[in-house]
Amino acid sequence: MIDSVADRVTAIDAARSEYLDALLSNGVITDTGVPGVYGKSRDFERVLGGFDRFVTESGVDQNAEVLRFPPVISRADFERSGYLKSFPHLTGSIHGFRGNERDHAQMLRMLESGEEWTGHFHSTDLILTPAACYPVYPLASGELPANGRLFDVQSYCFRYEPSSDPARMQVFRMHEYVRIGTPDNVRRFRDLWLERSKAMLKSVGLDAKAVVANDPFFGRGGAILAASQVEQALKFEMVVPISTPEALTAVVSCNYHQDHFGKAFGIVTADGDVAHTACVGFGLERITLALFMVHGFTPSSWPTAVRTTLGL
Amino acid sequence: MIDSVADRVTAIDAARSEYLDALLSNGVITDTGVPGVYGKSRDFERVLGGFDRFVTESGVDQNAEVLRFPPVISRADFERSGYLKSFPHLTGSIHGFRGNERDHAQMLRMLESGEEWTGHFHSTDLILTPAACYPVYPLASGELPANGRLFDVQSYCFRYEPSSDPARMQVFRMHEYVRIGTPDNVRRFRDLWLERSKAMLKSVGLDAKAVVANDPFFGRGGAILAASQVEQALKFEMVVPISTPEALTAVVSCNYHQDHFGKAFGIVTADGDVAHTACVGFGLERITLALFMVHGFTPSSWPTAVRTTLGL
Repeated sequence: MIDSVADRVTAIDAARSEYLDALLSNGVITDTGVPGVYGKSRDFERVLGGFDRFVTESGVDQNAEVLRFPPVISRADFERSGYLKSFPHLTGSIHGFRGNERDHAQMLRMLESGEEWTGHFHSTDLILTPAACYPVYPLASGELPANGRLFDVQSYCFRYEPSSDPARMQVFRMHEYVRIGTPDNVRRFRDLWLERSKAMLKSVGLDAKAVVANDPFFGRGGAILAASQVEQALKFEMVVPISTPEALTAVVSCNYHQDHFGKAFGIVTADGDVAHTACVGFGLERITLALFMVHGFTPSSWPTAVRTTLGL
Repeated sequence: MIDSVADRVTAIDAARSEYLDALLSNGVITDTGVPGVYGKSRDFERVLGGFDRFVTESGVDQNAEVLRFPPVISRADFERSGYLKSFPHLTGSIHGFRGNERDHAQMLRMLESGEEWTGHFHSTDLILTPAACYPVYPLASGELPANGRLFDVQSYCFRYEPSSDPARMQVFRMHEYVRIGTPDNVRRFRDLWLERSKAMLKSVGLDAKAVVANDPFFGRGGAILAASQVEQALKFEMVVPISTPEALTAVVSCNYHQDHFGKAFGIVTADGDVAHTACVGFGLERITLALFMVHGFTPSSWPTAVRTTLGL
C-alpha cells in the first residue's frame, strides 16, 4: 500500500516535470534559473488576459468596486492580518539597504568573494502581497454601508515555495471578488460563486470539481487549524487536472473567513456587528496552464467557443 | 538667489502634494498608508492599459520577442548585473522565514510586543525587479543571431524611495523595448525610439521634451559616474510636467549601456564582439498621471483622438 502511494507520487512528479519541459520547449514559458519564476510568452499572456477579462465580465452584476494594487502591501496591515501566525513560511519580506559609503564598499567586497552581502539590509515597511484581497480589508475599516461592500481586485501574489511543479509558481496573478458584510451577505456570495466559477471553467473546457479544502498552515498546530477549517467547510476549491489526470490542482479558491478580518481591521456592519468576509479567487496562471494542457499549445486552433469567450 | 531656489522647491513640493490630494479625493488612486504605494481605480487602469497597448502597437515593425516577467528576478543574475554597485539604496531584497516552530513562537511574541520580528528571515534567491529589461540580458547570454535580438518586455519594477510625489512610486510598471547587437544596431534603435516616443506622447496630448539625463547613482563616487553618463550622452529622457509646469518629470527613458550587460552576461555578436545593448522604457504610471493632469479626471470627456489612440 505504501509502495503504491509512493509510486503514485513519483508518477505525478514525473508528469509535472514532463509538462514543465513541454511548456519550456514550446516557448510557452521561459526559464529564469529560479524554480517557480518564469517569463511568459505572448500567447500565454493573451490567454491569461482573456480569462482575466472573463472574470470581470462574469461579475458585472456584482457592481464591484474595482481596485488594482501593486504586488506589495503595507507591513503594518500585514502584521494586523494574522498571516504571520498561519503562514510564516510563505511570507516574502522586503528588505532595503541602510548603510553609508563604507558599508557599501564592504558589501561589494562580500559580493565579490561570494559571501552573504545583505547584512546592511533591513526590513522596509513593505511585504509581498500574499493574496489579492489583503489590501481590501484595511481600507474597509469602520462602518459598512447598509448592504456591505463588494470589491474586484487583481494582483500579483507571492508564496515562498520554490517548486518544479509548473502550477506552483512563487509569483502569480490572482483575480478576486471580495464580499464584506453580514454572515448572510457573505454566505449568499459564496454560494453564488461556487456555482458560477464552476460554470465559467466549464465554458472554457475545464471540467472542474468542487472540493472542501484547507490552507497549508505552518507547523503541528497548523494541522488542527486545517482540520477545523475542513470540518466547518470554510474553504472550497475548484480543482482540475493540470499536468496529469492523476492529480487535481486548485484553480479557484472560495474562502469564508467568518469574522477574522472584520475583527483584525475593525470592520462593522450597519447594525454594529463585526463584519464577516469571504472571497473567491481565480488563479490566472494555473487556469492558463490547464487551458494549454487541455487544448494544446496553439491557441489559434482552440475550439471556437473557447476562443470567443477568451477574446482570442 | 538661494532663497528663490528654496522657494521654487517649496512651491514644487506643494504642487505635488496638491495633485496627490486631488488624485486621492477623486478616487483615481487609493491610499495604502505607505508613501508611493497606491491602489488604482478602474479608470486609471483603463488609461494605463490603453497606453500599454499603444506601446505594443507602436513597435509592431520591430518584430520583437515578447516576454512578460513577474516582478522578481533571480538573485544570481542580479548579482552579475552590477546594479548593487550603482544603486544599493534602491534595491528590494526578498527575505523568507527559515525557522522551526520554536522560532515561530518567538517571532509571534516579538510581533505582539512591537519588536522587530524578522530575525529569522534570510535572503531568498529573489530580488524585486529593478527595471523591466533586467530579466532579458541573462537569457540572451551566448552568441547572438546575425542581426542581434530585440525584446518587448513589461513588468512591475521596484525602487526603494518612499516619496509623497505621486509620480515617484515605489512599485510601478515599465514597458520596454530592448535591443542587443552591434554598436550600430543599438544606436539606430536608440535614435529611432527617441523620435518615435516623442511623437507617441504628442499624439496623446503630452508635449514632451528630450533631455540628456543621468541615473541616481549612490554616494560621492556616483557623482562621477553621473557626470560621465551625461558627458557621453548615454541616457535620454522624455520629460513632461506632471504635478506642475514648474517641474518636468521623465516619462520615457532611453539608455545606451554600451557593453556593460554584454560583458556581465557574456553576450557576443555573430562577429564575436561583446554585444552592446540599449533600451527604451515607458513609465506607465507616470504617463497615466500626466494624462490625468492634462485632460482631467474624466477619461470619457477626453479629446476623441486621445480616446481613440488609447482605445477608451
